[in-house]
Amino acid sequence: MKTIKIVAIFVLLSLSAFSQENTNISSKWIWYPGDFEVWLHREVGGRRQERGQAYPPFWRVDSPYGLVRFEKMYESSKSDTIRIYADGRYHVRIDGKVVYDFDPKKLVLPAGKHRLHFLVENYKTFPSLLVQGKTVFTNEGWQVTIQDQIFYPAASGNFTEVGLPPSTFHLDYVPITSKILEKGANSMLVDFGKETFGKVIVEKVKGKGKLRMYFGETRQEAMAETQAETFDYLDINRSVNKNDTTAAHAFRYIYAVWDLNVAIDKISALYEYLPVENRGSFSCSDSLLNRIYDVSLYTLHLNTRELFLDGIKRDRWVWSGDAYQSYLMNFYTFFDEDINKRTLYALRGHDPVETHINTILDYSYYWMIGIYDHFLYTGDTAFVRQIYPRMKTLMKFCLDRANANGFVEGLPGDWVFIDWAEIEKTGEISFEQLLLARSLEAMALSAKLANDREYAGRCQKLSEEIRQKIFNVFWSDQKNAFVHSRKNGVLSNVVTRYANMFAILFDYVDAEKKQKIKKHVILNDSVLNITTPYMKFYELASLCEIGEKGKAIEFVKDYWGGMLKLGATSVWETYDPKQTGDAHYAMYGRPFGKSLCHAWGANPVYLFGKYLLGVKPTVPGYKSYLIEPSLAGLEWIKGRVPTPNGNIEVYMDKKEIRVKKVRGEGTLRIRSAKPPKVQEGVTYSLTGDKQYEIQLALPQKEYTIRYWPIK
Amino acid sequence: MKTIKIVAIFVLLSLSAFSQENTNISSKWIWYPGDFEVWLHREVGGRRQERGQAYPPFWRVDSPYGLVRFEKMYESSKSDTIRIYADGRYHVRIDGKVVYDFDPKKLVLPAGKHRLHFLVENYKTFPSLLVQGKTVFTNEGWQVTIQDQIFYPAASGNFTEVGLPPSTFHLDYVPITSKILEKGANSMLVDFGKETFGKVIVEKVKGKGKLRMYFGETRQEAMAETQAETFDYLDINRSVNKNDTTAAHAFRYIYAVWDLNVAIDKISALYEYLPVENRGSFSCSDSLLNRIYDVSLYTLHLNTRELFLDGIKRDRWVWSGDAYQSYLMNFYTFFDEDINKRTLYALRGHDPVETHINTILDYSYYWMIGIYDHFLYTGDTAFVRQIYPRMKTLMKFCLDRANANGFVEGLPGDWVFIDWAEIEKTGEISFEQLLLARSLEAMALSAKLANDREYAGRCQKLSEEIRQKIFNVFWSDQKNAFVHSRKNGVLSNVVTRYANMFAILFDYVDAEKKQKIKKHVILNDSVLNITTPYMKFYELASLCEIGEKGKAIEFVKDYWGGMLKLGATSVWETYDPKQTGDAHYAMYGRPFGKSLCHAWGANPVYLFGKYLLGVKPTVPGYKSYLIEPSLAGLEWIKGRVPTPNGNIEVYMDKKEIRVKKVRGEGTLRIRSAKPPKVQEGVTYSLTGDKQYEIQLALPQKEYTIRYWPIK
Repeated sequence: MKTIKIVAIFVLLSLSAFSQENTNISSKWIWYPGDFEVWLHREVGGRRQERGQAYPPFWRVDSPYGLVRFEKMYESSKSDTIRIYADGRYHVRIDGKVVYDFDPKKLVLPAGKHRLHFLVENYKTFPSLLVQGKTVFTNEGWQVTIQDQIFYPAASGNFTEVGLPPSTFHLDYVPITSKILEKGANSMLVDFGKETFGKVIVEKVKGKGKLRMYFGETRQEAMAETQAETFDYLDINRSVNKNDTTAAHAFRYIYAVWDLNVAIDKISALYEYLPVENRGSFSCSDSLLNRIYDVSLYTLHLNTRELFLDGIKRDRWVWSGDAYQSYLMNFYTFFDEDINKRTLYALRGHDPVETHINTILDYSYYWMIGIYDHFLYTGDTAFVRQIYPRMKTLMKFCLDRANANGFVEGLPGDWVFIDWAEIEKTGEISFEQLLLARSLEAMALSAKLANDREYAGRCQKLSEEIRQKIFNVFWSDQKNAFVHSRKNGVLSNVVTRYANMFAILFDYVDAEKKQKIKKHVILNDSVLNITTPYMKFYELASLCEIGEKGKAIEFVKDYWGGMLKLGATSVWETYDPKQTGDAHYAMYGRPFGKSLCHAWGANPVYLFGKYLLGVKPTVPGYKSYLIEPSLAGLEWIKGRVPTPNGNIEVYMDKKEIRVKKVRGEGTLRIRSAKPPKVQEGVTYSLTGDKQYEIQLALPQKEYTIRYWPIK
Repeated sequence: MKTIKIVAIFVLLSLSAFSQENTNISSKWIWYPGDFEVWLHREVGGRRQERGQAYPPFWRVDSPYGLVRFEKMYESSKSDTIRIYADGRYHVRIDGKVVYDFDPKKLVLPAGKHRLHFLVENYKTFPSLLVQGKTVFTNEGWQVTIQDQIFYPAASGNFTEVGLPPSTFHLDYVPITSKILEKGANSMLVDFGKETFGKVIVEKVKGKGKLRMYFGETRQEAMAETQAETFDYLDINRSVNKNDTTAAHAFRYIYAVWDLNVAIDKISALYEYLPVENRGSFSCSDSLLNRIYDVSLYTLHLNTRELFLDGIKRDRWVWSGDAYQSYLMNFYTFFDEDINKRTLYALRGHDPVETHINTILDYSYYWMIGIYDHFLYTGDTAFVRQIYPRMKTLMKFCLDRANANGFVEGLPGDWVFIDWAEIEKTGEISFEQLLLARSLEAMALSAKLANDREYAGRCQKLSEEIRQKIFNVFWSDQKNAFVHSRKNGVLSNVVTRYANMFAILFDYVDAEKKQKIKKHVILNDSVLNITTPYMKFYELASLCEIGEKGKAIEFVKDYWGGMLKLGATSVWETYDPKQTGDAHYAMYGRPFGKSLCHAWGANPVYLFGKYLLGVKPTVPGYKSYLIEPSLAGLEWIKGRVPTPNGNIEVYMDKKEIRVKKVRGEGTLRIRSAKPPKVQEGVTYSLTGDKQYEIQLALPQKEYTIRYWPIK
């Protein structure tokens, strides 16, 4: 996460983005930036049901703008005949004059320089437009406005087919079957073998009466009937071969109970999923870690849908802090840039900003930092520029709420989350100040990309000031750590892990302080332990950053392995090894309130890719990158890490490292007791104590290095 | 329009509004303030079609918020069983906890003090809620939020029936017939006898093919086929007795043309209208004026629909400047408070304010002034308080755009309308500064009602400063008038009527200057004449205000009479007596672009009520009022003026004045050569030269006064 030195490349990137546009000759559906995502968020957020009750989000949910104007100034030596496809009612104007009596399949545009403008109205989904012509066709080069005098470059994506505007976006389906575990006269318990998500199909339904289906991530939950978090009642009144009238749900088990006059044969489902490619991979000599990787990847995929969900059973909402981890995991698995962008826009919604994202203080900051991380991995300048106005209004909202010390704290209506833990959440929390400082850095870098230099300078300066104040106020030489908080001017004497591990991750502390934090916080069992995979993510990453990869891996085996031992087929929302029995499934005061398939639990896919395979970009978009593989006590590791330029492949055992590079300036960094043996023409240099850096600069892609592990 | 002295009554009014609420025991549908209207505006605005093209507004059109939370803290010694009706999906929480498994027809609320909350989701129309219980029931005492941490008192109206939430609002219909003027083998021209609006019914349709219908406010327009502003094509493919598949349109004439295989019998329609009572009335000894009143009232009614429209044929949009006049006319005719409130909310839409209302500088000011006038006539404190937050954000937008002199001018994207006239519209226009000053007064008074005293003081001070600057900059002792504008520091030497007549109407000039303006501007034919009924409205009112009612009435007879002579059955958008033939119907570069049924043309209904019957409130809500009838050269006048407390009736001839008062402190002001003869017990006083004021203070309602006209 060292991302501070990459400013110089920005201008270069932005130029290449421009030149690319001019060579694009295919037309795309275009829309108002963010509104495809605002629409998705509205649809997805509204789907939650809890024990029979509709349960939409408890934050402001925006609707897309229903009336949007698309504009293009064109200049052409010849007239052009265009075909017009609009998702909504519309009219066309040329140079401001409405065009009457035309055939949308062949509207002739006059030669010369003209302003073309389409006003499209759609209040059901959202307006979008596709224009096909030789010289005039829709793409990001068009301007768009909601008629508020503000114009943006139009948004677009992978929607190019005439009949398939973005509002037709949908997930894919594939049939899956279940095994009957129990069958009574009017009931049945079925098992799909693992956690899954889909539309339930009841086969060979007959008779007349009620059919009740209770969905369970565990057998216990399904059997608990209305104590299950989700269930559906169907009214059966005729015989059908396949009844698929229920909404899609998460389940492994389904307990079905029907009235005496009803009969069913079996229950299957249509598995619902986002088609993504597993570009990343990981395997190693430890079969438990391999299983943990597989279960994590499956958990991530189940939550990778229209948007990144927190979990698939319960709220199925989009949460910024949860999603932030999914963006990062995505970079080591699917490298699906679109779902990151969709989720970021969905979370932000429209102006005005009136509350924190998801109402959570920390979650506004993760949102800003997330955009920066997305840029670091993808190099997508256009996206940063497109979303930048909404970053700025959110940051203004955040800064307007800072206190007289320039620190942020929870104001009435704000939720200070940090983690599910019994900790102080009022007053000035050191952790929140760190997130603010990092957000200001992200803003500064984004502002530069958007050519808003004055604001970039302000944010950079403010970030530095806040970092200095964090040290002055919260660092305790006595505790050798940051303390948790200050309230009414009184410093807490409690140390928690949060600020300390983020200070390492953000590289805000020097080597000496890192060692102090490692000893007095991270590896100190008297400091409150973390019981969510959510914060484990940062704890394990910080362990890796301070050279304790072996410990991190042991930890993964204990903690994730613990869930697997309890029969988990996906990773849980929280896991406390001290609990026993069905207590594991309870949360929020409900016996099955806990999500057993929570995206934040999938973080081993990120840890293994970033810290074992050791791959990360050092210049945005993998223009340069580092490969620093580590066995962390294993016999061998092997895997792929996706980049915008293809997949990097890494293999390592106790003698040899093999790497397949991609376009970009790649460096392999290893530690070896003796100078490594490399192919002819490969150069390397000694860059530290027994540390060598090998430039992957040959024309060929594959490299094999012999090295000598340090005992 | 003298409304400056009425501040003292505000506290009293607000208290009475509160006590009223506590005695209300019937439940009402409630919704988020303004969103019923935002929804109506979206629906109404989207209906425009122009020569076959969809034609939504060219300003930002908001959608209602789709997710709304309604809250009530209740305290009850007994439990209460409630029935719940929601327009949308919803869940209920008591003290924050979701209620599961309940019957919405009988949810039992516990006794004691509890917080009840409903989260209602509806993205198709808008969320609304009806709860019926003995102690807990929905009304304006509930709180509502879009979950942005801001709570408002819920909005409600006349919707109380279980099955009829506000989204079922609709206009009424009554069948009307037409006369066939021309009939060909495959065409027909029909005449409905006068301008009307409705859904067309084609009777006894047979065959297969196209039926084309061209709508005309004139015969010429209908016959012009695709040059008509509106038309519809129907695909006929089966025999039906009554085809009513066209959308509602404005027309007097319809020219129908059908394919050879098609046959129709005749064309009728369902007249579509808002059911309102004609509470006001006016008649007099001059039959032309009586006809002008009737045509004006009909014109106003045709444009009084879901919202106040500008005209019924063409855009059918809601325009703030046009609507402002409709509010005032409404007070002398229907006294329908709801349509004023609906229109004011619809025009304003949601925050953030990004453009002027309808994009027009002047129209933002009319909006604020309109709210104040609404309060003056109705005394509705609750409405002002409810809409006040949106007044404040609009005023902030306006003031943020003032220039270094504190004056407003059109910025890029602003439309400076003033009137359809060839006048300077750039730079600092004196007329716009007057509207700003008046808006600031309206804001100051509204802020006091909303208990925002600090802002009230700021607005009052700013208004006074701007008025002083207007005199310093624009008043010319040489011209004896306000000049039109200043640009780049250079004063124009052009005098126009606008600022001068508004200065009279707003009572911003002393008696001496009024006389100067009267002579050098209003009655000076070398000053550019007004050719829209829109600005005639203000010109005639200002003539009346300076004692020239006779001239105003003569003007009405000439100008409105001129339109009637040309066959008008409703009043036109513009009328220039110098034009001839079909040129009267052209506008916007189109042969039939002009609206021949434009609300702003209906202003005689206001002039006759306010300046002939002479009735106006002097304390908001007609707590006090003045009746100052005037024959203005006529033999007799007679009529009713509606108030919140019933109708005031006035009769006057050259000997006698008869008045029927309503509750409130009424004063009759007359001029008489000799002291008037009044009933026993009536008191009067001499208040000017031959001017007497008679207190309408008897228990009885009717008063007869003998007086002696001044020759």
